[in-house]
Amino acid sequence: MEQFDFGIVGLGVMGRNLLLNMADNGFAVAGLDLDETKAKSLEKEAASGHQVKGFIVAEDFVKSLKKPKAIMVLVPAGKPVDAVISSIRPFLSANDIVVDGGNSYFPDTDRRFSELAKDHIHFFGMGISGGEKGARFGPSMMPGGDEKAYERLRPVFEAIAAKVDGEPCVTYLGKGSAGNYVKMVHNGIEYGIMQLIAETYDVMKRGLGIGDERIQEIFETWNTTELSSFLVEITATLLKKKDKSTGQQLVTLVSDRARSKGTGKWTSQNAMDLQAPVPVIDMAVLMRDISKYKEERVAAAKLLPWEAEGEEDVAIESLKDALYFAIITTYAQGMVQLKLASDEYKYGLNLEEVAKIWRGGCIIRAACLEDFRQAYRRDSALANLLLDEKIAEDLVSRQGAAREVIKVAVDKGVPVPALMAALAYFDAYRSETLATNVIQAQRDYFGAHQFERIDKEGLFHVQWDEVTG
Amino acid sequence: MEQFDFGIVGLGVMGRNLLLNMADNGFAVAGLDLDETKAKSLEKEAASGHQVKGFIVAEDFVKSLKKPKAIMVLVPAGKPVDAVISSIRPFLSANDIVVDGGNSYFPDTDRRFSELAKDHIHFFGMGISGGEKGARFGPSMMPGGDEKAYERLRPVFEAIAAKVDGEPCVTYLGKGSAGNYVKMVHNGIEYGIMQLIAETYDVMKRGLGIGDERIQEIFETWNTTELSSFLVEITATLLKKKDKSTGQQLVTLVSDRARSKGTGKWTSQNAMDLQAPVPVIDMAVLMRDISKYKEERVAAAKLLPWEAEGEEDVAIESLKDALYFAIITTYAQGMVQLKLASDEYKYGLNLEEVAKIWRGGCIIRAACLEDFRQAYRRDSALANLLLDEKIAEDLVSRQGAAREVIKVAVDKGVPVPALMAALAYFDAYRSETLATNVIQAQRDYFGAHQFERIDKEGLFHVQWDEVTG
Repeated sequence: MEQFDFGIVGLGVMGRNLLLNMADNGFAVAGLDLDETKAKSLEKEAASGHQVKGFIVAEDFVKSLKKPKAIMVLVPAGKPVDAVISSIRPFLSANDIVVDGGNSYFPDTDRRFSELAKDHIHFFGMGISGGEKGARFGPSMMPGGDEKAYERLRPVFEAIAAKVDGEPCVTYLGKGSAGNYVKMVHNGIEYGIMQLIAETYDVMKRGLGIGDERIQEIFETWNTTELSSFLVEITATLLKKKDKSTGQQLVTLVSDRARSKGTGKWTSQNAMDLQAPVPVIDMAVLMRDISKYKEERVAAAKLLPWEAEGEEDVAIESLKDALYFAIITTYAQGMVQLKLASDEYKYGLNLEEVAKIWRGGCIIRAACLEDFRQAYRRDSALANLLLDEKIAEDLVSRQGAAREVIKVAVDKGVPVPALMAALAYFDAYRSETLATNVIQAQRDYFGAHQFERIDKEGLFHVQWDEVTG
Repeated sequence: MEQFDFGIVGLGVMGRNLLLNMADNGFAVAGLDLDETKAKSLEKEAASGHQVKGFIVAEDFVKSLKKPKAIMVLVPAGKPVDAVISSIRPFLSANDIVVDGGNSYFPDTDRRFSELAKDHIHFFGMGISGGEKGARFGPSMMPGGDEKAYERLRPVFEAIAAKVDGEPCVTYLGKGSAGNYVKMVHNGIEYGIMQLIAETYDVMKRGLGIGDERIQEIFETWNTTELSSFLVEITATLLKKKDKSTGQQLVTLVSDRARSKGTGKWTSQNAMDLQAPVPVIDMAVLMRDISKYKEERVAAAKLLPWEAEGEEDVAIESLKDALYFAIITTYAQGMVQLKLASDEYKYGLNLEEVAKIWRGGCIIRAACLEDFRQAYRRDSALANLLLDEKIAEDLVSRQGAAREVIKVAVDKGVPVPALMAALAYFDAYRSETLATNVIQAQRDYFGAHQFERIDKEGLFHVQWDEVTG
């Protein structure tokens, strides 16, 4: 009866592919889905000799697992996760492990963790990145929860994870909702990089009038440089895709209304709670929101014209450097958020490990992750990647390009909020003194909020409308 | 025994000043504060002949009010508000009115509204803006709640409110937490404008090397133009303030660590929930957060140098136009948020009325508010102020200046994230087609999230790594 090593609930794209990945690695895996077609189709998809079975009844599914039972849930975030937990809980006992592999909102994970702990059931929030293919052939996985319980699952996860130089892209990250939190910020960074790529594309296409095929070649070339990364690679690939009937680049026929599932927004919102500045992510969330207002934009296009000034051009090399500059800044912002969250929520995150497991399998995998890993190896308490000498050099040498590209975009009327946010962040961060002293004076003026001084200790309040005294 | 028309709980700066304002207008007002000194001092401050009394016991205070009783609470947002409500509730009865005049988080107002409704007590969230002086001599007030109950308080509020052309800066705004919500967005806009003024100051000071006294003169002049507003006015005034011992502008000795009380952050976070793009406010919140990292900024200043390029200059007139451009954009963003919130939370807001009551008394009062009022009078369903022909003209004619100032700031390495966010928003909003089609293609590539097309109805998914087919 109890024959399977691992159970997976939810046999959608991610669940099915993870299950088959485990089966490929020699594990006996049971799947549960209320949709009988999905449950049944499993056995056909598994290679012959693999021990795989689909169930449609929760009790049968749970009882088919070896003790202590290990179950991964892969259903949409929110109520579906609670529904699944309720359906399997009657058949679980102490020491069993439930892993939520979806993009759950991290406070939900903390709640579920506490609820299941009452019955001594170990609950894990584990972010999984890599999309369909990653799940099938090697994702990056971000587990958080009870460390001893994780040790029992480690062989399974290390077997199915992506590998970089032989190292698996999975590691125990920290307590409670650490895994979901890291995945949330991963997705925030993903939003940022996607927006930066879109802006660079827009500067080339609308700003500089570069042809579609040439743009494709440029991204393809960039993927062989320091920009080498999954997102640049797939951009180069998808720009090749032709529409069957017209022969045009298919992407030019894709609607510009961008959708989102909330993880980018959560990243920005929680960053504000932590006072972690992540402006590139904020602007990426923003642009997906603005994309929604299509009818208004069509009207505004007529009402708010701009005649591009001059014939400014910018070297492709500068575009590359600007994109790299902004991407590095985005990772730096996300890493600071993780550091602050780790302090706030007592996760005990190790950022070198985070950089390590993001090097492969996940959507934001990129050559630069190895640089970040090295930076945190040099200084595990590094406050900000911008303060690492090597990273600082990479940015200082490319800042001129970022400035140049932004100026051209401004002249041409092409919106580049994320690129601007990267530079503004850089310039603010490297400002020993900011103009926020004016804001403090204003606040004291109208609200008696008091201010600090640079030359004396204490809190002060003055009558600002009296020139002296 | 029941002799007072109105009661105020919390006799800090705002409470005391509102109470004295009411007394000046002929109302008999009771005050409650646990601090006996504050309670007692009231009577001395009131003009002779005014009926005013301070209490330190909740029961005595409530019993001194005429029925139906009307009480305004002015204590810090959060738990103190609940504590005050608990302390007075035993002495209240049906038809009494409790007004929360603080900056409460709007979901708290909805909760309190429902709780007190059980006893048929009317609860109002009413944002009050104007700072110390406004409270004393005429604030702008933003009440939301039960409209009939408001009618009873109207004479008091209209008497004490600021007046513009004889019209009081108070009006019933809408149901439930409408008043707190409008005040929250008011404060978000306030954050945005303060940051824009600080950036303009920074461009003049660090970017162009303009002297402190000249900068003061410039702001003073600007306050006589279309930029005329409370925040520009007080900036001009506070820049005159001299430090006693050094004779320097005091503002140059004020620490650049900016503080905040949360309303700006709430505005940004809730805007993201509503998909209301408010990037200037986002960047204003961001800069207060970055200002906190003083030690890191000092280190980064050395590690991340930039040699300002060229000798670019920019006319003061362009700085003025750029600031005006960005301020108008900020109001437009906030107004869109109000519109979307009104739909989402069923407030029934009238944006013409909001513009009207913001024209005087409050921190964001400005000459341009009359333009906005007119715009909403022309079209009460206006989706965005940028789509009003008059406002559009004001922006189109100044966009060149905004572009010019941003380019100079970029060259000089002065961070202007809010100014950039205003322009990027403008350029995105006036883009019939955005590059977010690339993002949709990426999402479909790695996550099978599907996409819409511009030439056909439906949702599509393709194998992006197959060039054809």
